[in-house]
Amino acid sequence: MTTERYDIYKEDVAGRANVSDTPELVQYYKDLEKFEAGALWNVANKIEPWEPKSQSVPVLWRYQDLREYVLRSVDLVTPEQAGRRVIYLNNPGRQDVSAAVGWLYSGLQVMHPGEAASAHSHSSSALRFIMEGSGAYTVVDGHKMTLGANDFVLTPNGAWHEHGVSEDGTTCIWQDGLDIPFVNAMEAGFYAVHPDLSQAVTFPVNDASHIWGNPGLKPVLHDWQKPYSPLLKYEWEPTYEALSRYAKVTDGSPYDGIIMDYTNPLTGGPVMATMGASMQMLRPGEHTKAHRHTGSIIYQVAKGHGYSIINGKRFDWRERDIFCVPSWMFHEHVNGSSSDDACLFSFHDLPVMRALNLYYEEALADNDGHQIITE
Amino acid sequence: MTTERYDIYKEDVAGRANVSDTPELVQYYKDLEKFEAGALWNVANKIEPWEPKSQSVPVLWRYQDLREYVLRSVDLVTPEQAGRRVIYLNNPGRQDVSAAVGWLYSGLQVMHPGEAASAHSHSSSALRFIMEGSGAYTVVDGHKMTLGANDFVLTPNGAWHEHGVSEDGTTCIWQDGLDIPFVNAMEAGFYAVHPDLSQAVTFPVNDASHIWGNPGLKPVLHDWQKPYSPLLKYEWEPTYEALSRYAKVTDGSPYDGIIMDYTNPLTGGPVMATMGASMQMLRPGEHTKAHRHTGSIIYQVAKGHGYSIINGKRFDWRERDIFCVPSWMFHEHVNGSSSDDACLFSFHDLPVMRALNLYYEEALADNDGHQIITE
Amino acid sequence: MTTERYDIYKEDVAGRANVSDTPELVQYYKDLEKFEAGALWNVANKIEPWEPKSQSVPVLWRYQDLREYVLRSVDLVTPEQAGRRVIYLNNPGRQDVSAAVGWLYSGLQVMHPGEAASAHSHSSSALRFIMEGSGAYTVVDGHKMTLGANDFVLTPNGAWHEHGVSEDGTTCIWQDGLDIPFVNAMEAGFYAVHPDLSQAVTFPVNDASHIWGNPGLKPVLHDWQKPYSPLLKYEWEPTYEALSRYAKVTDGSPYDGIIMDYTNPLTGGPVMATMGASMQMLRPGEHTKAHRHTGSIIYQVAKGHGYSIINGKRFDWRERDIFCVPSWMFHEHVNGSSSDDACLFSFHDLPVMRALNLYYEEALADNDGHQIITE
Amino acid sequence: MTTERYDIYKEDVAGRANVSDTPELVQYYKDLEKFEAGALWNVANKIEPWEPKSQSVPVLWRYQDLREYVLRSVDLVTPEQAGRRVIYLNNPGRQDVSAAVGWLYSGLQVMHPGEAASAHSHSSSALRFIMEGSGAYTVVDGHKMTLGANDFVLTPNGAWHEHGVSEDGTTCIWQDGLDIPFVNAMEAGFYAVHPDLSQAVTFPVNDASHIWGNPGLKPVLHDWQKPYSPLLKYEWEPTYEALSRYAKVTDGSPYDGIIMDYTNPLTGGPVMATMGASMQMLRPGEHTKAHRHTGSIIYQVAKGHGYSIINGKRFDWRERDIFCVPSWMFHEHVNGSSSDDACLFSFHDLPVMRALNLYYEEALADNDGHQIITE
Repeated sequence: MTTERYDIYKEDVAGRANVSDTPELVQYYKDLEKFEAGALWNVANKIEPWEPKSQSVPVLWRYQDLREYVLRSVDLVTPEQAGRRVIYLNNPGRQDVSAAVGWLYSGLQVMHPGEAASAHSHSSSALRFIMEGSGAYTVVDGHKMTLGANDFVLTPNGAWHEHGVSEDGTTCIWQDGLDIPFVNAMEAGFYAVHPDLSQAVTFPVNDASHIWGNPGLKPVLHDWQKPYSPLLKYEWEPTYEALSRYAKVTDGSPYDGIIMDYTNPLTGGPVMATMGASMQMLRPGEHTKAHRHTGSIIYQVAKGHGYSIINGKRFDWRERDIFCVPSWMFHEHVNGSSSDDACLFSFHDLPVMRALNLYYEEALADNDGHQIITE
Repeated sequence: MTTERYDIYKEDVAGRANVSDTPELVQYYKDLEKFEAGALWNVANKIEPWEPKSQSVPVLWRYQDLREYVLRSVDLVTPEQAGRRVIYLNNPGRQDVSAAVGWLYSGLQVMHPGEAASAHSHSSSALRFIMEGSGAYTVVDGHKMTLGANDFVLTPNGAWHEHGVSEDGTTCIWQDGLDIPFVNAMEAGFYAVHPDLSQAVTFPVNDASHIWGNPGLKPVLHDWQKPYSPLLKYEWEPTYEALSRYAKVTDGSPYDGIIMDYTNPLTGGPVMATMGASMQMLRPGEHTKAHRHTGSIIYQVAKGHGYSIINGKRFDWRERDIFCVPSWMFHEHVNGSSSDDACLFSFHDLPVMRALNLYYEEALADNDGHQIITE
Repeated sequence: MTTERYDIYKEDVAGRANVSDTPELVQYYKDLEKFEAGALWNVANKIEPWEPKSQSVPVLWRYQDLREYVLRSVDLVTPEQAGRRVIYLNNPGRQDVSAAVGWLYSGLQVMHPGEAASAHSHSSSALRFIMEGSGAYTVVDGHKMTLGANDFVLTPNGAWHEHGVSEDGTTCIWQDGLDIPFVNAMEAGFYAVHPDLSQAVTFPVNDASHIWGNPGLKPVLHDWQKPYSPLLKYEWEPTYEALSRYAKVTDGSPYDGIIMDYTNPLTGGPVMATMGASMQMLRPGEHTKAHRHTGSIIYQVAKGHGYSIINGKRFDWRERDIFCVPSWMFHEHVNGSSSDDACLFSFHDLPVMRALNLYYEEALADNDGHQIITE
Repeated sequence: MTTERYDIYKEDVAGRANVSDTPELVQYYKDLEKFEAGALWNVANKIEPWEPKSQSVPVLWRYQDLREYVLRSVDLVTPEQAGRRVIYLNNPGRQDVSAAVGWLYSGLQVMHPGEAASAHSHSSSALRFIMEGSGAYTVVDGHKMTLGANDFVLTPNGAWHEHGVSEDGTTCIWQDGLDIPFVNAMEAGFYAVHPDLSQAVTFPVNDASHIWGNPGLKPVLHDWQKPYSPLLKYEWEPTYEALSRYAKVTDGSPYDGIIMDYTNPLTGGPVMATMGASMQMLRPGEHTKAHRHTGSIIYQVAKGHGYSIINGKRFDWRERDIFCVPSWMFHEHVNGSSSDDACLFSFHDLPVMRALNLYYEEALADNDGHQIITE
């Protein structure tokens, strides 16, 4: 290509690179390439942007669109063939890494009564949020947990885990959330199939909830050294009750209404090192203000209907819909009901951003904190 | 006294001091005293004991003995005169520091409906455990908490606090627990009376419970930097329920049955830096094994009846009785009922022992782990 | 393309996805694409690899190759045009993100006496390792540090910083190391030019070394809350002396000889949250064993000559050469001298791997721990 | 005694106890005593003081007074008889616990060339500061350290340790500092004589200094999980050099001149959990301002001469003298030379005060921060 350009990122700003191609320079650049090197000034403005510009785009996935496809997968492939029957969310800007947004993977998995996935473990961390059906369960390192709609469960990195639906249950669909793209990017992805394809349940069912799910109380005996929450399962009912109680004594967040983080009860920190999760309640008629921050978020509508505005575009949502907010994009939420609350479950990589001092946040200053809808 | 002896602690063991008085040495010792000095070998075996020997003695305080005296105080002194109408527990071995055991103070306080103590703060940390009555409340730095029987509440060091009983309540009696003797020993005791003798309630009543009392959930907004639990109040009902749930999935501790620590939900650690608290359930017919550890404990019987054996002596207890276990004394507990559980509330200085690497523990090896009752 | 395939990643292993394309399935996949979704089983084996396979390749950059190009840049571009005159290392597998390896950027920067770069700050973290010349200095948030060959200095994220060479110095070349690719990948890159293009030196020169560079001692007065090492500069002379002293009392690491991490003296942890650095000494004739671990490393030869074997390929190095080891590739090092030690400076992203529980390590089991050279 | 009084602590201040004895009340109090109980209002003002009033008194121990007695002990008792030949400092207010001040023990120990104390361990933590002689050494868990004048060494709780002087050394005297009184008060004192009365040196001599005594560097291999500093020995020469360097870039503390804490290089925290140590330099002619804080301090004059004012009393000191400052007493220091610096070594229980949130500090407000000398 005779017209190759090297000076495409130049900026005419003091302190920024601003070098125009000349024949001598171009020859110099070509010479450098032989030594696996280049001139920084040609890429400096590209790799040192003034502020983040996400490769992801905001997307809303309607449950009514996806549900039938998810259910059809049951007829199309067996669990043995597919490993897991999952339809994953594929952000147009992140198809190279199969991410729903940023470095987060998400998919909708279906399972029929009596089915179970084979047990495996991986260096990725995972979570599930139950969308419909009864009888679902997850086993983590011998701890079996039964799951109902809107329950949230962890399958952390390094743990043997498997999912299933009991014989007396109904067809179940849940959302999976994983940091697979991130762990792959970090070149630290390991995967192992359990030698028996299935693990024994070696603890009483739901023992983690009985041991660790008591507010302000901790067993004297049970030690826990693993770097994630021992609670593993967070049920919907006490979560909704917690938000309702908390709502009575707080004005809430201007950006998120009544919002709580799921936590590791032993540290007060996030449930896992690479992914956190939250549940928020938008009060009847609530319209929050816009802010933006680094880090990516995937939301699922746990209750109610409304809309969110993300970088100037409106996304209408109803129960079970999923949408994402890419890094450093303004977002605000609106409860569409004037009489009932709406609840949004979300998971995100904010624990990574905070652990590495990369969390930045900014409120929208103009227009009383509300975005102009441009799309 | 012409026959003063200096060699009273000598031991005939290799590595221990074993110096007998001689006229020359005695003169040498007397000379040293002029310079505020002494010979270590005369006290070495005293100040470096082979193992701890507590100055405290085990004591059981029967509620039926003390209750009438506590109630009589109402007729004998006014709150204004007395500051607080409290009968304190005075261990025979610790009367010089007014301690119930070790460095822990405890007393029984009474208050009539409509009464309130004046607001104050101190560098000591305090807790209360409600014994009887309705309408009790505590205010801590503007947070008001309502309290019922077996509820446990913190008034940490440095916090303005006051106690009262509402007009529509009944006469209330509660146990106070403080580290006053310890803080005095550390020569760090400060005390201040609130300038208005009373503080304003600036938060919604019981807000701390709504904000921090949700298992596995934490408000995103509320930051807390103070070195003690933000939960402040721990109610009896969810505590008893937690023990009951936990009992289903654990064999329990051989020494304590079903035992849980009250915790700071933001750290998983003790409720305050100098005092921890626990609740334990002895299952019907349970007889635990004996162990001993450093640190002092004060128990109150929250439910049921039974007995404990402390250093070979049996102490029978029933609901509301209080007893103490001094440092490094063997102790085991017996539920007197074969059909109902018994519950023991306790508070202790184990957080101090652990923070300073002074916690040691030992199981009784002989007699299948059970003490021979010698008294 | 009429022959598009979806089943290219299938594996015939229990627990892995193994679904072959059928016309019905292909139609199903195409339908899903309309909804920004896909079937997991088509990508599962790709995104859940059995173990990491780095996109980077091992590279050695010879200083004798690059030095003349670095020096020529002085004639080709002005500091004002270029921002900084830097030749960056461009790994063949990572040219899309301008990385030397993994998510790490590195470049060689040159500066003439009397020159100074404009002051700026960014959310990326940076470090410099001086290669040649005298009179170099760096200013970080008002702290000026003078630098000589093999000195190592931090310019952490969020700090205003600038580099220069004093009038009485000589032409200086140093290696820059930054986490720019990582911070961009995390979509958290911010950049700011100092309003005055230069900052005032507001502390005594080299004050950080005097305050924090004393072994086992810490000023009582100086508080430091920032999330990186206050020491900022690590000089060559005491570092080499430290390795020499340490060598006297240790057998060293089988994989790295005598190796020490640069640390934050207030935490004992890495110098910055996203990048760590180490210096290691290979004793005369030393040939280490091979191991591999997650995380990427960039080495610079600070002293001596020898070679390293990386994934079966031999790379010969001499003083000032730079080479990289991608994630999960076996590597071992050989000192080429039988009489003198050799020293390797390195920086890496191991603090990220450790903070997020993604650090895995494995020794080479075969051939007495030594690789077979295949290239 | 017919005239026993109970109301001796009453105060006529709102919020304080102010109850006068009456025959009825006295009978009530006597009844309570039968049940190991008492009325709080009789002791409340005693046990809840407005501010700390130390039981210790300030004392200065002149080395010229004590040295001959220390040396004479060699003729008076054998090491086998005495265990250790130590003259301990016995504060007039703390003779019941053999403390030099507060809960800190201190003594001067002498040893002749070729002598060694028997190896032992205890739950108390200890430190030594060498005063005179050559050839002293300490062994801690197999690590042998050689010691010269003004060197400071740790023998932490739980570690086997022994002291000696080599055959080719001279008579050595050092100061011992221990938390024995505190550990006894906490009823956690354990003591063990080494089964062989002596332990093997299993590491290279002074290995800890070579491994951990390098500023800003940490061996990658050596892990350390013990709750105290791995450095163990802190030599005088680098300490003095550190103070001199630090003095160039700081104004110093108004209360302490140029002061640094000895630290654990792995945490930046104190050398042991219960005792910290510091070294400070008073510049020529320096006269610091007065402040007071909770916690007790023992000083030894490492260099120079001058005086300190403690609670209004002047104490003149010269090299090797020892003096103490009790909790919450104002103190200020004066270097007696206008040409040379003076250095004070000190150890204290401030780590305890800080860990338990009991550290309080106050500057003297009056008289430009200087005390009026009243004694």
